[in-house]
Amino acid sequence: MSENIYIGVDLGGTAIKVGICNQEGELLHTYEGPTEKEKSSDAVIGNIEKYVRYIVEQSPYEWDQVVGVGAGVAGFTDVRAGVILMAPNINFQNVPIRAILEERLGKTIRVDNDANVAALGEAWSGAGKGITDCVCYTLGTGVGGGIIVNGHIYQGFSGLAGEIGHISVVPDLEAIKCGCGKMGCLETVSSATGIVRMAVEAVERGDHTSLSAIEKVSAKDIFDAAKAGDEVSIRIINRAAFYLGKSMAAVAATLNPERFIIGGGVSKAGDILFNEIRRVFAELTPEPLQRGVEIIPAKLGNDAGIVGAAGLLLR
Amino acid sequence: MSENIYIGVDLGGTAIKVGICNQEGELLHTYEGPTEKEKSSDAVIGNIEKYVRYIVEQSPYEWDQVVGVGAGVAGFTDVRAGVILMAPNINFQNVPIRAILEERLGKTIRVDNDANVAALGEAWSGAGKGITDCVCYTLGTGVGGGIIVNGHIYQGFSGLAGEIGHISVVPDLEAIKCGCGKMGCLETVSSATGIVRMAVEAVERGDHTSLSAIEKVSAKDIFDAAKAGDEVSIRIINRAAFYLGKSMAAVAATLNPERFIIGGGVSKAGDILFNEIRRVFAELTPEPLQRGVEIIPAKLGNDAGIVGAAGLLLR
Repeated sequence: MSENIYIGVDLGGTAIKVGICNQEGELLHTYEGPTEKEKSSDAVIGNIEKYVRYIVEQSPYEWDQVVGVGAGVAGFTDVRAGVILMAPNINFQNVPIRAILEERLGKTIRVDNDANVAALGEAWSGAGKGITDCVCYTLGTGVGGGIIVNGHIYQGFSGLAGEIGHISVVPDLEAIKCGCGKMGCLETVSSATGIVRMAVEAVERGDHTSLSAIEKVSAKDIFDAAKAGDEVSIRIINRAAFYLGKSMAAVAATLNPERFIIGGGVSKAGDILFNEIRRVFAELTPEPLQRGVEIIPAKLGNDAGIVGAAGLLLR
Repeated sequence: MSENIYIGVDLGGTAIKVGICNQEGELLHTYEGPTEKEKSSDAVIGNIEKYVRYIVEQSPYEWDQVVGVGAGVAGFTDVRAGVILMAPNINFQNVPIRAILEERLGKTIRVDNDANVAALGEAWSGAGKGITDCVCYTLGTGVGGGIIVNGHIYQGFSGLAGEIGHISVVPDLEAIKCGCGKMGCLETVSSATGIVRMAVEAVERGDHTSLSAIEKVSAKDIFDAAKAGDEVSIRIINRAAFYLGKSMAAVAATLNPERFIIGGGVSKAGDILFNEIRRVFAELTPEPLQRGVEIIPAKLGNDAGIVGAAGLLLR
């Protein structure tokens, strides 16, 4: 086996997930170990080194076949300098991870934030396989995004392209304040946090819903209730979907991407969510900008982060 | 003089404007002749050939120094194939202008639509000189746009990137139908057409305004009245500016451009317009996405089309 291999690292608060990908973005082997963020950034980077060496040793590949190592992390990164500026999850601040790992591993190192990396993973070998221009939404605790232009992550002026969770979409009278300090961001209504908030408000208001019986409502509870026909839950998911569709219409008029790829926990709501997103997108987008454009679920699930991190070496 | 020169053609309904640019995007010579669209597309292309050969003959440059000819036209173009699909202004439909002109001139030919070409002109040697990523708005009869990514026009999936005039920004209760068939597009409130419509409505409603004395109100009348303190005119410009700022906040969250460049007739409204755009942009955009981002007037005026067309050869 003399082919090149690419190593992806998903650097999370609890676990570091490492994977080996081939040239086509197929994930061939994975390994997972504790992050141990409570020790120090140096210890965490030591763990990355250890897990990377270990997964290659355990695989049928030789160290010489490793082209490089890419890492994705939740937080702010300086992609050009290869520095993690701030990643509260793992207590990193201004850590020049690229320089340190290049020294220790003797390989090319790349780093980017988790939303961009997940977008690249989907674009490379997931729901965007075979196309060059797509926009990925990750609907989790917040709403993250990644813009893929000509097969590469588009960074923008200060590396903040793809902050689509902060498109202001909710009209003033209904808008609430977002974590970013602004009013009416998409994230306030279409993230798991936003959906749960709307459910809690409905229960507190005394709306008739099966959610009232649940002590601590989760996003999954709301999806399950909606699937069982609970009207309040359906209304909440429709509202999240409405603003997603509205934001996609704005993004389509700006970038005219071929596909919108939707991942993250909230995308698990399934057809109830996707049908309404597509309806609103069609309602607000001029016909030529809709033609041939698809809105589809992500495919790689949690692996998108590892695959996309490996993809940083190629794209 | 042995330097390369680049020829730009602004193919309009009445006149064909031709210009010679150097490597830096400086416009060195211009020539203008009638389009004669009433004859045939072949006659129009014959005129382009004639004017291009004439301007080079009259200049201090040799034909061998001409790298190629770029053309911008209002309408739909297939950039890759070099075909003008539909340009009602000049009665062109499915005209393979690149193939025809390459045959006749023996030079590389490029074609793109007027909004993209104007954006490229501004990016190359106008208000975007020295930067690589910007978004241009052209506020004329409609609202056109062009997205410049890494110094090049970004086309998107079907060549429709930059249709920012069709971002839906006006809330349902105030939205009117756009020419594209959708409700609440930016173009309905921030184009010259939209501004004049709001003025006519105000006069018809009996609002107290100096515009009542004018028989056929133009956008310039509204700017002049606003500068003289007419409150209705100021309100109208503020409304146009509000939705421009709102659309820019959405574009910034998506693309994180370094600059927004605003050209076209409506941009002549000056500070009244720009101050409100900047205020709204600041209100709706998370601070990190605002940092270092400028919203400034275009610089090249009507020359942007010729310069950008020439720029198609380089970028």
